[in-house]
Amino acid sequence: MTTQQLHSQILLKKSFLCIGLDPDLEKIPSHLLETDDPIFEFNKAIIDATHDLTVAYKPNTAFFEAYGIKGWKSLQKTIQYINENHPDIFTIADAKRGDIGNTSSMYAKAFFDDLNFDSVTVAPYMGKDSVEPFLAFENKHTIMLALTSNEGAFDFQTLTTNGKELYKQVLEISKTWKNSKNLMYVVGATKAEYFAEIRKIVPDSFLLVPGIGAQGGSLSEVCKYGMNDKIGLLVNSARAIIYASGEDDFAAKARFEALKVQQQMAEIMNGSL
Amino acid sequence: MTTQQLHSQILLKKSFLCIGLDPDLEKIPSHLLETDDPIFEFNKAIIDATHDLTVAYKPNTAFFEAYGIKGWKSLQKTIQYINENHPDIFTIADAKRGDIGNTSSMYAKAFFDDLNFDSVTVAPYMGKDSVEPFLAFENKHTIMLALTSNEGAFDFQTLTTNGKELYKQVLEISKTWKNSKNLMYVVGATKAEYFAEIRKIVPDSFLLVPGIGAQGGSLSEVCKYGMNDKIGLLVNSARAIIYASGEDDFAAKARFEALKVQQQMAEIMNGSL
Repeated sequence: MTTQQLHSQILLKKSFLCIGLDPDLEKIPSHLLETDDPIFEFNKAIIDATHDLTVAYKPNTAFFEAYGIKGWKSLQKTIQYINENHPDIFTIADAKRGDIGNTSSMYAKAFFDDLNFDSVTVAPYMGKDSVEPFLAFENKHTIMLALTSNEGAFDFQTLTTNGKELYKQVLEISKTWKNSKNLMYVVGATKAEYFAEIRKIVPDSFLLVPGIGAQGGSLSEVCKYGMNDKIGLLVNSARAIIYASGEDDFAAKARFEALKVQQQMAEIMNGSL
Repeated sequence: MTTQQLHSQILLKKSFLCIGLDPDLEKIPSHLLETDDPIFEFNKAIIDATHDLTVAYKPNTAFFEAYGIKGWKSLQKTIQYINENHPDIFTIADAKRGDIGNTSSMYAKAFFDDLNFDSVTVAPYMGKDSVEPFLAFENKHTIMLALTSNEGAFDFQTLTTNGKELYKQVLEISKTWKNSKNLMYVVGATKAEYFAEIRKIVPDSFLLVPGIGAQGGSLSEVCKYGMNDKIGLLVNSARAIIYASGEDDFAAKARFEALKVQQQMAEIMNGSL
């Protein structure tokens, strides 16, 4: 999917919501545990209930890998289900990968070719040659960590180097890499005031924004500082939507929560908030 | 496995070699491609030929994930084969993971519980709460990237912050984390002169050292600056050993290359090099 197509979907759905799929067997409704593939069935129910309200799904690979081969099968079935039934939805493998060049090429192959995700999240610590193998894929997107939503973001990301914070260096230096047009960035919602500075460095890039919902970030604050004229945001919510209920009504409750966020987004896009 | 047990194995085998298992279907001998599971058969042959010369195996998860579910099965069979036949060998999941706390917990579960690796490599960019979930596992080890062996290491890792390079901050700050005794660090062999400085910060920690062999690092230089009184090094070689030959004799040639490294290590340990 191109960023233009993603933008069109945002306008069409009046939504820049991304729903995080973090399926945890200890949290999903007990009646699903009797099925052959509870993780896939959970994801499928969430997708069926929310696909018209969201422009992106973001399966978090850890929540599949934790269940071994069975989990990897559930991941494959989930991405296939989205691609076959909702090809207009942008898919993100939240995998936080990154390694030396020949290894990153294999990760890119895993997520772009084998699983056919539109995008994958990567960590920047190993620098240019750990990220460029991902950027080489046409119409695929590499979403690099810049400023994350967790407390540990302040351990290294905000250290000052050459007169500016490390995450700003990450943004600036990455713009010089080959095919950097295929980069998007992770910027946590819990630090809304940082978005103004970030937009000075990457005015046009899509930002994937975790931290709304369970982690406490404010949607309107993020939009105030982070939105550009193409919207340029994918705001992720996982737990607040997918675990809105732990009972039989989980899909309906997930839809209800997603609808609340989508309506707030529509109001923001209409300029009325 | 405890670090004491690892140290005992190093003394017993006169080796601190770690063999990287990066199985690539485009490089493994063609006669294996006719088997049901070429990746596992390749790994098994390498393991059978080298297990008395090495104290660690390091499967690189990218090279398994690239083949989807089939690859994940090969990874599971590989680690099971090592654990069942060579329980004295230290196993490293080279996965470069790291995410917010609840996600890192799932990754830790995947590699420590489900696959039963002794250790996993992690990236430091997201800070304390992205690494501590791994450190919580007793007698499991978390090998954090400090200074890597690739060119991109100079993009961010060597930037100066608070008067010292970022990778030194990573080392220093990580020592304050809970259960930091379970930390080891990745330090690339291509930068041997850095080891003296690194040993001032982490004198007792095991260092996993990639970059010997195909990447050009010098074993004697690394040992000169990086070894401590418990050896404290795991020196990784992957391509130079496992792809020493692409023909039927690949396992014998792998053994020959591993033996050369092990003999050099024995000489260093005997103080005669």
